[in-house]
Order: sequence, then C-alpha cells, then structure tokens
Amino acid sequence: MSHTPKDGRKRVVIEAISPEVDAGRFPAKRTVGDQVRVEADIFTDGHDSIAASLLAHREGSDEWTEIRMHPLVNDRWTAAFRVSELGRYGFKVLGWVDHFETWRVALLKRIKADSDAPVDYLIGADLISETADRASGADAMWLRERAQVLRSGKAAKELRIHATDPTLHELVQRYPDKRNATESEREVKIVVEPVRARFSSWYEFFPRSTAQQPGQHGTFADCERRLPYIAEMGFNVVYMPPIHPIGRTFRKGRNNNPESKPGDHGSPWAIGSAEGGHKSILPALGTLDDFRRFVAKAQQLNLSVAMDIAFQAAPDHPYVREHENWFRKRPDGTIQYAENPPKKYQDIYPFDFESEDWTGMWQELKSVFEYWIAQGVTIFRVDNPHTKAFPFWEWCITAIKRDHPEVLFLAEAFTRPKIMYRLAKLGFSQSYTYFPWRNAKGELTAYLTELTQTPVREFFRPNQWPNTPDILTEFLQIGGRAAFSIRLLLAATLGANYGIYGPAFELMEHKPVRQGSEEYLDSEKYEIRHWDLDRPHSLRPLVATVNAIRNGNEALQGDWSLRFHFTENDQLICYTKESEDRSNLLLMVVNLDPHHTQSGFVSLPLGELEIPYDRGYEAEDLLTGERYLWHGPRNYVELNPSRQAGHIFKIHRRMKVETDFEYFL
Amino acid sequence: MSHTPKDGRKRVVIEAISPEVDAGRFPAKRTVGDQVRVEADIFTDGHDSIAASLLAHREGSDEWTEIRMHPLVNDRWTAAFRVSELGRYGFKVLGWVDHFETWRVALLKRIKADSDAPVDYLIGADLISETADRASGADAMWLRERAQVLRSGKAAKELRIHATDPTLHELVQRYPDKRNATESEREVKIVVEPVRARFSSWYEFFPRSTAQQPGQHGTFADCERRLPYIAEMGFNVVYMPPIHPIGRTFRKGRNNNPESKPGDHGSPWAIGSAEGGHKSILPALGTLDDFRRFVAKAQQLNLSVAMDIAFQAAPDHPYVREHENWFRKRPDGTIQYAENPPKKYQDIYPFDFESEDWTGMWQELKSVFEYWIAQGVTIFRVDNPHTKAFPFWEWCITAIKRDHPEVLFLAEAFTRPKIMYRLAKLGFSQSYTYFPWRNAKGELTAYLTELTQTPVREFFRPNQWPNTPDILTEFLQIGGRAAFSIRLLLAATLGANYGIYGPAFELMEHKPVRQGSEEYLDSEKYEIRHWDLDRPHSLRPLVATVNAIRNGNEALQGDWSLRFHFTENDQLICYTKESEDRSNLLLMVVNLDPHHTQSGFVSLPLGELEIPYDRGYEAEDLLTGERYLWHGPRNYVELNPSRQAGHIFKIHRRMKVETDFEYFL
Repeated sequence: MSHTPKDGRKRVVIEAISPEVDAGRFPAKRTVGDQVRVEADIFTDGHDSIAASLLAHREGSDEWTEIRMHPLVNDRWTAAFRVSELGRYGFKVLGWVDHFETWRVALLKRIKADSDAPVDYLIGADLISETADRASGADAMWLRERAQVLRSGKAAKELRIHATDPTLHELVQRYPDKRNATESEREVKIVVEPVRARFSSWYEFFPRSTAQQPGQHGTFADCERRLPYIAEMGFNVVYMPPIHPIGRTFRKGRNNNPESKPGDHGSPWAIGSAEGGHKSILPALGTLDDFRRFVAKAQQLNLSVAMDIAFQAAPDHPYVREHENWFRKRPDGTIQYAENPPKKYQDIYPFDFESEDWTGMWQELKSVFEYWIAQGVTIFRVDNPHTKAFPFWEWCITAIKRDHPEVLFLAEAFTRPKIMYRLAKLGFSQSYTYFPWRNAKGELTAYLTELTQTPVREFFRPNQWPNTPDILTEFLQIGGRAAFSIRLLLAATLGANYGIYGPAFELMEHKPVRQGSEEYLDSEKYEIRHWDLDRPHSLRPLVATVNAIRNGNEALQGDWSLRFHFTENDQLICYTKESEDRSNLLLMVVNLDPHHTQSGFVSLPLGELEIPYDRGYEAEDLLTGERYLWHGPRNYVELNPSRQAGHIFKIHRRMKVETDFEYFL
Repeated sequence: MSHTPKDGRKRVVIEAISPEVDAGRFPAKRTVGDQVRVEADIFTDGHDSIAASLLAHREGSDEWTEIRMHPLVNDRWTAAFRVSELGRYGFKVLGWVDHFETWRVALLKRIKADSDAPVDYLIGADLISETADRASGADAMWLRERAQVLRSGKAAKELRIHATDPTLHELVQRYPDKRNATESEREVKIVVEPVRARFSSWYEFFPRSTAQQPGQHGTFADCERRLPYIAEMGFNVVYMPPIHPIGRTFRKGRNNNPESKPGDHGSPWAIGSAEGGHKSILPALGTLDDFRRFVAKAQQLNLSVAMDIAFQAAPDHPYVREHENWFRKRPDGTIQYAENPPKKYQDIYPFDFESEDWTGMWQELKSVFEYWIAQGVTIFRVDNPHTKAFPFWEWCITAIKRDHPEVLFLAEAFTRPKIMYRLAKLGFSQSYTYFPWRNAKGELTAYLTELTQTPVREFFRPNQWPNTPDILTEFLQIGGRAAFSIRLLLAATLGANYGIYGPAFELMEHKPVRQGSEEYLDSEKYEIRHWDLDRPHSLRPLVATVNAIRNGNEALQGDWSLRFHFTENDQLICYTKESEDRSNLLLMVVNLDPHHTQSGFVSLPLGELEIPYDRGYEAEDLLTGERYLWHGPRNYVELNPSRQAGHIFKIHRRMKVETDFEYFL
C-alpha cells in the first residue's frame, strides 16, 4: 500500500506562473517604480468557485503584501504589484476553493429559477458562522447575527435579501478559508534596478582623443571640458574604454600593426604595465583625483560614467608576476597568450578560469569592480564577458548587487544567441545586440519582436548601438549621411537603451581599414585622434533633437510597448511606442533606403491604439514641428532621406470637433 | 566577503532540455520500443571545444547507459535512447570542456597555416599523458608511448602525422576528463506505457443492448457473441459503460426522464444498489465468472477490455451507508446530490474530496482499480476525472502504474483546456479531445497541430471520437451518411488513438432528443436498445477497411509525424503521416463538405516528403485500390462525398524508369 500525500485536500492547481525565467532558476528584471504584472493558470476540479492571491515581499523580509488576483480568460489569473526600491523582491501565488462564493453563485441561480429551498439558507448560515470564527470584533458579531437570520426560517423573500446582501459578500471576502490553500511551488525572484537600466542614452569616447591640441594625449581635465558637449546632446551615460596603464610588451601599432613604433600608444584593452593594472590609471590621463573630479563633474550634468572592465592582462601586468597561476602555463614555461589559430594576440594573456586558485582570482576580479564603485562609478561595460566562466559572473554580479543594488552591468558579448541570453540571465543589466547588422524591415521586425514581445524581455535588456569602435557596418560605410541618420533614428526609437561611439558617429567617420572589414581606418583603438567637433555637417543637431524627444516622451523610455505596423512599401518601417498609462503615443516611420525617396501608405490598427475611427487625428512630427491631419487607418508618408530619414510623430488621438466647445451646449 | 560556490570551475552550461514537462515536475510519455530523442542547449565560455553525454537508466537502477551527444545548430545538442520496457526511465545530461579536442582543432588550423611550433606538440603530449592516467592496460601504454613521441623533438613532418592520427583521437575520446563536468540540474523522468497507449482503435457498446431478442437484457454471454463482429471490423479495444448494479433511488427513466417507470433500467453511471457497488456486477449482466470469461474471449481476439470507472454513488450505493462521511452532508441531515443549479441530479452523490476521511476514501477508490485489474482488465476509461481532486489522480495512477505498468487510463474530461492538460500530466495515458466539434479545415489544422507538434505531445495523447453516448454532433445529425464517413476518416487517420460508439455509429443513428441537443433520441444511457447489425447500408465495411489500413500501415500508428498541406479549396483537407523510418508514407485528402462534390489542387512539399521533383510518383488509394500517377507538387483531387468522402493514399515515392531495369545497363 502506498502512502497518501500530506496535503491531499489542496484541490487548487497553480501552473505556468509569469514572469518566471527558466522555471525560477533566474530572477526576472524590473526597474524602480515598475509594475510587476503576475499571471498564473489557477483552477480546481469540479465547479467550485476559487479565489487567489498574489503575495509579494522584499527578499528576506517577513512582511508580505497580499493582493487579490482576478481571472482573465482560459483559467488565467492576474494581479500586479509595484516595486519601489532597488534590490530583490520575491512573490508567490496562493489559490483556494471559495465555498462561500460557490454557495452564493448557486443561490443566485436558484433564486432566478425560483427553486431556492430552506436548506440552501441553512448551508449559507453555516458558511457564515465559520467565517465569523475567523473574524473578530464587530465583523464577527455582524456575521453571527446574519447567520442567525438565515437560520430563522423567515419567508423566502426576506431570506433572499439577507443572503444576497453585498455587504455580506464583501465582509465574508475579508476572512477567506485558506486551510486547504495551494501555494505555488517556489518563490519567484525579481531584481529591481535603477531606471537607467531601462532607459539610457550612451555616448562613448576615447579619453586620450580629447586634447585641445592635435597630437597631444588627452587628460581627464580635457574629458571634463568635453562633458557639456555630450550633455547638451542629451545623453545620460558617458562611457570610456579602459583607462588603465597600457602594456608595453607586444604593444600593437597603428591600424592594428603587430609591431608598434616608438610613440605609439597601444590599445587601451591591453591592460597593465609597470605602472599598475586594473585598479590603476594610465598616468597620461591623470591621477585618481582627476578621475574622481571628472566623475563628479559628469554627475552634475546628469551623466553617469560607465567604465570599461576588460578582464585580461598585458604580459607586463602586475598580476602576471604576482599570480602566475591565474594564467595557463605552457610546457616550455611561457604563458599562453590569447589566440584564434592561426591568429595570435601576444599582447594579451587571458585568465585561466580553471586555475587551481580560481577562488582567489574570483575575489580579486570582484574587488576591481568594488574599487571603482568606491570611486563613484555605478555603470560597468564589461568587455567580452563570454570568454570568462559563467559561474563567475553569476556569483560576482549577485554579490556586488547585494551591497550596491544601484550598479549596472552592460554585457559586450557579440556572440551566439544562447550565450548572450545566458549572460543576461546571470545578472547583466543590459546587453549589446545584433542590431548593428539588422537593416531590412523583415529582420528588424523579427529581431525586435523577439527582444521585446517574448519572455526574453524578462531578463534581456537590449542596448542598441549603430556603431562601436569595433563595428563600422557596411551600411554606414556605404550609405553616407542618410545612413547615419537612419541608424540613429532606429537605434534611438527602437531601443530605450541606445548608444553611439562618438565623435566618429556624429562626424560620420565611415572609412574602413580595407574593403570587407568593419574596422575603422586609423582606429582610435590604436592611436590618438583629434576630432573637429564643430565641423559644419556634423549630425550633432539631429542627435540633440532625437535625445530631447527621448527625454521628453515616456513612450521612448521603455521597449515593451513596441508594435510594428504594416506598410505597403518594404523600404518604410513603421512602429509605435506608448507610455505605460497610454497617454503618450509615438509613431515612427523610417525610410530604410539611404539612397532614394520612398513613399507609401502605412496602416495603423486604430482599435488597438485607441484612436477613434470616426474622426481625424493629428500626427505631429517632433523632429520638424510639422503637423499632419490624418484620418482612418491608412495614411500616406513620403521620405527623402537626404533631407529627412524618418518621422517621429506624436499622435494626438482626439482632434476637437464642434461638441468640444462650450458654446455648442 | 561573499563565499564562492563549490564548483566554480564547471564551465559548461546545460539549458532547455527536452523532453521535459513543466520543468521536470511531470514525466514525459513514451511507449515500449519508442525512441526518446533528447535535446539540450549546451555551451561554454570562450572558444574551447566541448563534449556531452546523455545518461539514461531505468528508474531506481544504478546501471546508466551513456550515449555521446552531437551538436545540431545554435548550440543545441542531441542524442537518443530506446525505451524497451514498461515503467519509468530517467535521464540526465552531462557536458564538459574537451581540452584535447580544443588542442587538436587548433593544431589542425596551425598546420594548415604552417604555423605549428614545437610547444604545440608538448602541450598535446601533456594532454595525452593525462589521458593515459585515466586509461589502463594496453590503451594506457599506447597513449604513453604516443606522448613520448610528441615530446621527442622529431621533425615537424613526423610530429604532424603522430599528432593528427585518427587512432589517437579515437582512443583519447574513450577516456574523457570529466572532473569539471556539469550535470543537468535534475533527472528527467519518462513513463513508458504499452504500445496501445499510442495506437488503439476503440469500440464502445452497451452490454445490456446485446441480447439476441429485442427487449431482453443483454448478458456477458451475449457480449461474447458480439466480439467477433467487433474484431472483424479491426478494433483492438472494446469499451463498455459501467457494469455495476444500478441505483434505484431517483432512477432516471427513458430519455432522461426524472421519473422512471417500472421496468426502466436506469443509467449505468448511477452506480450502486443493494446488490453492491463499484466492485460488483449488475446481476442481469451475469456473474464475475461470466465477466472474466468475456475478458478472456476478447483477449483471444486481440481485444483489450476497457472498463468505465465513474467515481460517484447512487443514493442506495453501499458506500453511502458504510462511509457516510465520504459525502457532503447538508444541515438538514440529507446528503448533497450532484447539481448544476438550477439542474438537480438527485440520482447521484458525488464524493467529497475534502472529507475528513479523505485518505480512507482514496485508498478505497484505488482499490476499485486494483480489484478489476485482478480480473484481467488493463484499460480504464475514467468518467469525469475533472470533478475529482487532482492530487488524488496523481497519487492513484502513479501508485497503480508502479505495480501494473501495463495499465492504461483514458480521461473522459470534456472541459477547459488547462484542466484537460493537467489530467494528462498527472498520469492519464490518453485523453478525449475537442475533435467532435472541429469540422472546418482551419480549426482542425490549428487543433491537431497543437496536439501533435508542440510540447503538449510529451504528456497529452489524444483519443479522437466522432461520437459518444453523450455526443451526437450537429454535423452527424445533419450531414447524413457522408458526414459519418467524413468523421470516421478524419478520426481514424488524424488520431492514432480513435474510437466510435457503436452500433450507433456504423448504423448512422443521428436523431437528437430535440433540436439543439447533442443527446441521442431514445439514448442507450437510459434504456435497452436492439440494433440490427446487418442493416444493408451499415458503414461496417468502411469501418473495417479503415481499420485494416490502420493495422497495416505504421504511418497511422502514431501522431507525431502529422503534417498538413496546402489545398486551394478550403473544403478539402490534406495531410500526411509517416512511419518513424519514413518508409511508410500515407497522404490523406478528405472532403469536409458532406453535401457537395469538392475538387481542387493539393500542394505537397516534395523536398520534406523526400519525393523526387524530377520523376513521377504513385498515389495508391488504399480505400478503393485505385492508383493515380502524380507528378510535381500540385495534383488534382475530386471527391464526391456520397460515393467517397476521402482518399487514403499510400505514396510510392519512386516509380521505375528505364535505368531501373537490368537490361538498361
């Protein structure tokens, strides 16, 4: 004979909870002030009514907030809670059979069919008495009296009134019978991060290229002078490649030359020299104090400083001497440099994550983040996280965010999709994407739909970049000024998080080192550049306008509302974004063809967008100030990319008609 | 400072294992001899090669079978194992970094670029030495010698040959370094059931309607005489409504009359009377010995007997007297009968699954199955399982299948989708479906695709019925003989498991009790019927032909290969099924319109179906013996439903051409 379970009378089933990442293995992500809309399949056997609650708390706290769930369709229930503080929350779902409600619904049917019998009121009286036992004070007394009335044998007419009284219903609901309630099998975790995790505009620049005089090495003081230029364009994150001492052994020359010449400055990603490693600053840039002053100045301009963390060492990095066993040794006694056979990167030693002293190495790497957090840094762009062991990231990010929940991590992993998603699950707040290489309408639509409309969005926050120091796409190489405008508009309106690598971007730097390559000619990665920021054709005004629109319109500050709409012309892409309360509705139409004027009708689902079918509405182009009168779902658009690559329309859903005026009445 | 995990050097990630039902909460289902194709996302950081194994065993056994997995695309890996015995299996996935393979692949690239260096061979030698330490005997010796050769400093040309030797590769693979292997987080369970769980043809009949003389009550002896009729039609399961004593209190009369007349036999689902309950037999049908003789006779004809288990009690059921607390008592002392207010079913008492003595009740209900298993029954059709507590079913079915893994359960739950799926997850081997009400091409395609091409198929096995004693669909009421033919062809070819309620089906009983109802007029549920089995227009020959085709074609004995194909005419539905080895390919085309001849072109994806584009193929109609010469993807079909409602084509992929003949060569 087999043993029966302990809780065989827990008749309610709770399944398919969302949000939940990999069946609860990883937390879902939100930002401060967000709503967490929870859904679950909840049902029981037979025809009994059920009730359900969402229970939420801050992780570790015993104070749970209980919110009643309500049914949608197909046995799906929902409720929501807001997360108002940084850190971790948890929630679970509770469901139970509601015998009073079962009785009440049946009684209403019986009364309607005039078939209510005295026993029905006696059953109700018993249920109310049981409720009274769970209540206290005035409520308990009131309920006992009502039970008494239902047992009194009064005339049906009177019993009906007392049994179906809304006050009774409301009062009983306050004291549910949860003895046999089912609790969801595990607590689901939510990580709450700063709003900047969801909405950020990044500007990347090389600090050494900021000197006022050509040929000179820029300093943090120069960087400070550059900040107003960036802030005036409306960005809120400044990101700099590594600022540490650069290795001298096997230093790379200009244009990635394996041999450097005297005076070459090397790649900032070849970290470490006699001057120090990941916790030191390249002397040519300044001192730690200079850096802190720069960070403080940025903060005054509402700019967060994002630091580049590249866990690898130049051969002359102090780690190599002090922790030889963190690197892989070859049988000939040399240390294994990075390579992708037959290519060799002799200026870089990768860390060996199978090192015997992996725990010591993990602690030290984590302390690098902690060191810079102590200097005021709150955002880290992590270089190639996919070449470091996954368990390290889960441990490191979780530990750091426990002490510093305000800190954000951007994963620079341009690699295979499952790996990019895994890193996001492990804790990275934002991730680079394949956006740079998505140019056609179909591929943009498919990719952005995957990122914003599937469960991927619970853990993966895209950060869309049209260019980076490593990526000068063929589209930008070929398409001229229009191509830069197109990619800017797409990145900034498809991605609540986006960034550009400047001044290369706004100055439309587009020459590759050679045809077929995505590397820049005379790349800043290997040399100092001097940029003429005031060049007359700079895209700076367009960038500033686009960022001002982002900063002023909540619709562009999140990705989950993104919806693509039909256009007749495949060179025109059309999509909308809305604020959570739906009051701010933006419609984007972008010409994907940098060479020709494209035109056609776009089709909007008016019902879904809550635009009335029976009157006109206004499409106000926030880029130009032009205002268009639209009517119905189909409207004509024409875009000449040499003048304007796209529209960012603010939709005014309701235009005034005669009845809107006081004197009409 | 936070603690590092124990296993930080386990660098391989294993995710998204399939099959897995609700993240391992429930087992996946297979039948004896099936293949379990396991897939998982497996990857590591960086560029190292990885390897992975599938480990499978019978539950509880320490003997694991290890099968190497191989990569598909997008970091997905696969391997398969066969389940050859009834019961439960388990599997897990193991993944590890393969340092030898990483070295070998890099070396091959270096050799190709002529950049292999002496140190590369020393690294290989070390890896081979480590492998030798894991090996023993001749293998270990061979490996040590080879390591010695690579350390010998011989000429590159010679080293290359020794390092890339396939024997070395093969030998090293036998002794992988799994020290840092990652194991999947949980063991996935597989329940293996008899083949009849996947492929079964059910024939339902009322035993009391089998008497040779009209008006008489049929007996098991009469049922025995009915068996050849059923066997000759090619069925393999006979299913009878409950055979227990029928209650007398509130017994239903003919056509569901709330009041019965003397001589009325009542509904077999109102179980229990002074003669006994769920472990007794209605005396009019015969004795327990008669029943056992009937079961044995059926077995001789390759017919399994399916018994109907309806857990509910008539007011005069012995349980009501012996276990009053298994039922819900009302305040007036009466027992709560079944109702759907304002409808009352006073002839039925439901069990109260919140009873104080629920454990006693569970044990007794389980013992009902065990009692009939002891009499030779191996299949149970469970009436309304969704009105009994879900935890009961999980416990009961799991316990019974532990002792009797050959036993099958069919869930008769015509209810909401989530509930039907839950019951299947809990252990029901087969389930009734919404098939009876799916008539249009779009709805058939969507529904059958959900059932056979999504993860639902891992736990839910559809059993498709065109009619039941409760369900005479409007399609059958209205559409005449053609409608019955259409629904038979669809059920029998869309569902590897299907059944009919006869003789009502083959005799095309189609009159409802009133318009708008799906109840039969003069339903056998409430009275004895006498059927003229030899009626000239009986569908019996068509049923026999269809079952013969099913029994002779493996393609129709499973559902997972189902694929729908395009037809120009929405009244024609077209689909294929194939055997696992693809040698048996059937193409069905059914006219969904019972009133008119329909015609049009069907389009086949020749590539997917492995039909050559460049030569003709043959479509042999197994229903008529007619043979059609087809060519290319588009072929014309015309079906007059009064003559033939559909085709079941056997596709002969390859027709002979001149080069197939010996004298051509």
